[in-house]
Amino acid sequence: MSDIRKLSTSDGDFQQQLDALLAWESVSDTAVNDTVNQIIQDIRQRGNEALLEFTHRFDRWQANSADDLQIPLSRLQQAWETIPESQQQALQVSADRIRAYAQRQLMDSWSYTEADGTLLGQQVTALDRVGLYVPGGKAAYPSSVLMNAIPAKVAGVDELIMVVPTPDGELNELVLAAAHVSAVDKVFAVGGAQAVAALAYGTETVPPVDKIVGPGNIYVATAKRAVFGQVGIDMVAGPSEILIVCDGETDPDWIAMDLFSQAEHDEDAQSILLCPDGDYLKQVESSIDRLLPTMERQEIIATALRVRGALIEVKDMQEAVSVANHIAPEHLELSVANPQEMVKSIHHAGAIFMGRHTAEAMGDYCAGPNHVLPTSRTARFSSPLGVYDFQKRSSLIMASPDGADTLARTSSVMARGEGLTAHARSAEYRFKADKD
Amino acid sequence: MSDIRKLSTSDGDFQQQLDALLAWESVSDTAVNDTVNQIIQDIRQRGNEALLEFTHRFDRWQANSADDLQIPLSRLQQAWETIPESQQQALQVSADRIRAYAQRQLMDSWSYTEADGTLLGQQVTALDRVGLYVPGGKAAYPSSVLMNAIPAKVAGVDELIMVVPTPDGELNELVLAAAHVSAVDKVFAVGGAQAVAALAYGTETVPPVDKIVGPGNIYVATAKRAVFGQVGIDMVAGPSEILIVCDGETDPDWIAMDLFSQAEHDEDAQSILLCPDGDYLKQVESSIDRLLPTMERQEIIATALRVRGALIEVKDMQEAVSVANHIAPEHLELSVANPQEMVKSIHHAGAIFMGRHTAEAMGDYCAGPNHVLPTSRTARFSSPLGVYDFQKRSSLIMASPDGADTLARTSSVMARGEGLTAHARSAEYRFKADKD
Repeated sequence: MSDIRKLSTSDGDFQQQLDALLAWESVSDTAVNDTVNQIIQDIRQRGNEALLEFTHRFDRWQANSADDLQIPLSRLQQAWETIPESQQQALQVSADRIRAYAQRQLMDSWSYTEADGTLLGQQVTALDRVGLYVPGGKAAYPSSVLMNAIPAKVAGVDELIMVVPTPDGELNELVLAAAHVSAVDKVFAVGGAQAVAALAYGTETVPPVDKIVGPGNIYVATAKRAVFGQVGIDMVAGPSEILIVCDGETDPDWIAMDLFSQAEHDEDAQSILLCPDGDYLKQVESSIDRLLPTMERQEIIATALRVRGALIEVKDMQEAVSVANHIAPEHLELSVANPQEMVKSIHHAGAIFMGRHTAEAMGDYCAGPNHVLPTSRTARFSSPLGVYDFQKRSSLIMASPDGADTLARTSSVMARGEGLTAHARSAEYRFKADKD
Repeated sequence: MSDIRKLSTSDGDFQQQLDALLAWESVSDTAVNDTVNQIIQDIRQRGNEALLEFTHRFDRWQANSADDLQIPLSRLQQAWETIPESQQQALQVSADRIRAYAQRQLMDSWSYTEADGTLLGQQVTALDRVGLYVPGGKAAYPSSVLMNAIPAKVAGVDELIMVVPTPDGELNELVLAAAHVSAVDKVFAVGGAQAVAALAYGTETVPPVDKIVGPGNIYVATAKRAVFGQVGIDMVAGPSEILIVCDGETDPDWIAMDLFSQAEHDEDAQSILLCPDGDYLKQVESSIDRLLPTMERQEIIATALRVRGALIEVKDMQEAVSVANHIAPEHLELSVANPQEMVKSIHHAGAIFMGRHTAEAMGDYCAGPNHVLPTSRTARFSSPLGVYDFQKRSSLIMASPDGADTLARTSSVMARGEGLTAHARSAEYRFKADKD
């Protein structure tokens, strides 16, 4: 029997119960912080020498020289050629679809000229160099390489540097093949806080980057936070989540399996179902009980469902939308008859999977939109990873002599109101002589 | 005599000298961190009661009740009506221009349908509620209210909550007038870390927001970092900077005053001039020496120029562009004959002021583009504050039955390659029966 929580919005304390269920605060760990800061300092001071030492200590293999830390592109090609054709095809289809979607996100420069000849605009440029962190070992996901690398390349990033730890010297062929199909420019077999530090500050071999993206363990996440400012970083993700809104007409086995697909990530993952039909919720629970023993990752799923899952009965679909907006989930499935109508009322969600046929898992791999999404209610204020995360804007201002006069007069009043007289005088030099 | 540093790119150690000059690391202060964390915890636990206590302790005035912490909108209107007409006009012109530019930044939702009927897209929504921090006392800048508030309102933010400390109970009329013209929705007379905590977590009176923007002192900045994740924040800015690239044909007094206009912000502000003409650099230095004694903020300017300023002789304009891209300045003036040609080679800058008539100060107040800009070389990876900071995106995926079959087959191969079989089976349920 599953021990998934059953709630109803008609419970007197529903809002408190829901908020307790959603609560997630990443704990900052002083010991981890100290270790990470020491590693960063070492890499900054001693470069490759420290990088080799840490790789020996944490990944248990000894490179002969810093050159050995680099994995040549030919090795990526070789991995690509040796994986099964079905996996080649799947990687290629996924990469093509991710690229096609990403291209729609490209931002363009724009400008306009005002009546007095003053030009205003925004110039869009790509980042020069980006670092992509890829976890090694059991959490090595080729899909994560595609999702992080392809938008960067579409944005026009000149050089994409991947780092991936190789514990005990072991390489993951699918990850290398994914790097090949994503056209990554350089790969280094390093990981942990030392890899983040090397990317942020550079070593004799690893070039310093402008931004670091990609998932990692607590050392990697802590290191990313520490180097933020020196370089840009993507968001630091919490546990994965799915919220399903169902009208009670989807095959309950499908919904149960969709809940499992989040829960299998780890014990902290969150799977919640909202439905106005109490009988249907019971059917889904039966499906859960029947299907759970057949799952490879049964224990992880059971724990996640027990600790952080819920089946929630709502009054009606309108209330379901309102609860969904409060939850602001990373993944939202609208398993309903008319999802296009309902989506208009959704204000906060990372990715929205519309209709009974759109399994969330498709979005993890190949639908096209990114699988790097805001978690822990941060969809209230943030967005999926996208091409726009690898582009930035510069404001453009070119005042004509007439326009400068107008702007200078307003600036002068404002600056003097703020007591900044150098600002005022700098503007006043641009008054038109004949108007003085 | 000014003590501004004179460098040349032909110096053997130029790159090291430049990097030393640019180096800026915000020091994290353990004592400040501890104080801030205690304040946040207090506000979370005791709400208004703690907010009243901290306001009494730090701002030295005692509100009778939490209701007294709110400044009614009628008081903003009153401030607007009592300021001089010249300031009303300047605020109105600035607000109108900032709004017109911001409207060009609005992002729209989009979607497209593939041949097999699958719909992909991106839904853009505004943040629900935003908090705007405005410093009190001497650093109270009405322009900062306009620059932070107007893009949020243009984005469609429902509710914009401003907080502004009122040390000793004193209100700044220009700041209130700026809040009036920006259509801020609510104002509370609180500041410091306690105001940031109240905005992040809410109290009985202050509603919790989704993002906090606006400048502040080290306590405010530390508090913003601490609540990041619970809410979004804007960037934490370093000292202000200007880089001027000049061909030697602009009146040297204008350039000297433009350098002053950054330097007068504070002793850490950075003013740098690049020019290929050594004689011209000497002329600018003479202008500096002659004009400096006439400045109200002479001491701040002199310190900033001595500690962090530089006049740099470059080989030619092409080298100037290359140095400018390395510096990635917050403000870049291209005081040259053909700035539109040169701007194409600029890859990293917050805002670019093109031509001899475009004083940087115009961008601080009224040109239209935002004056909240990336500092300390972060223009390599980040952008000016804009409407896009108050909007976010949700990915849309709606698979048709045919499309679902295709996506499910690729997802299944990828998921099994990653060992995530619940993902695979969730996708496989969506295979078309006739193809199975």
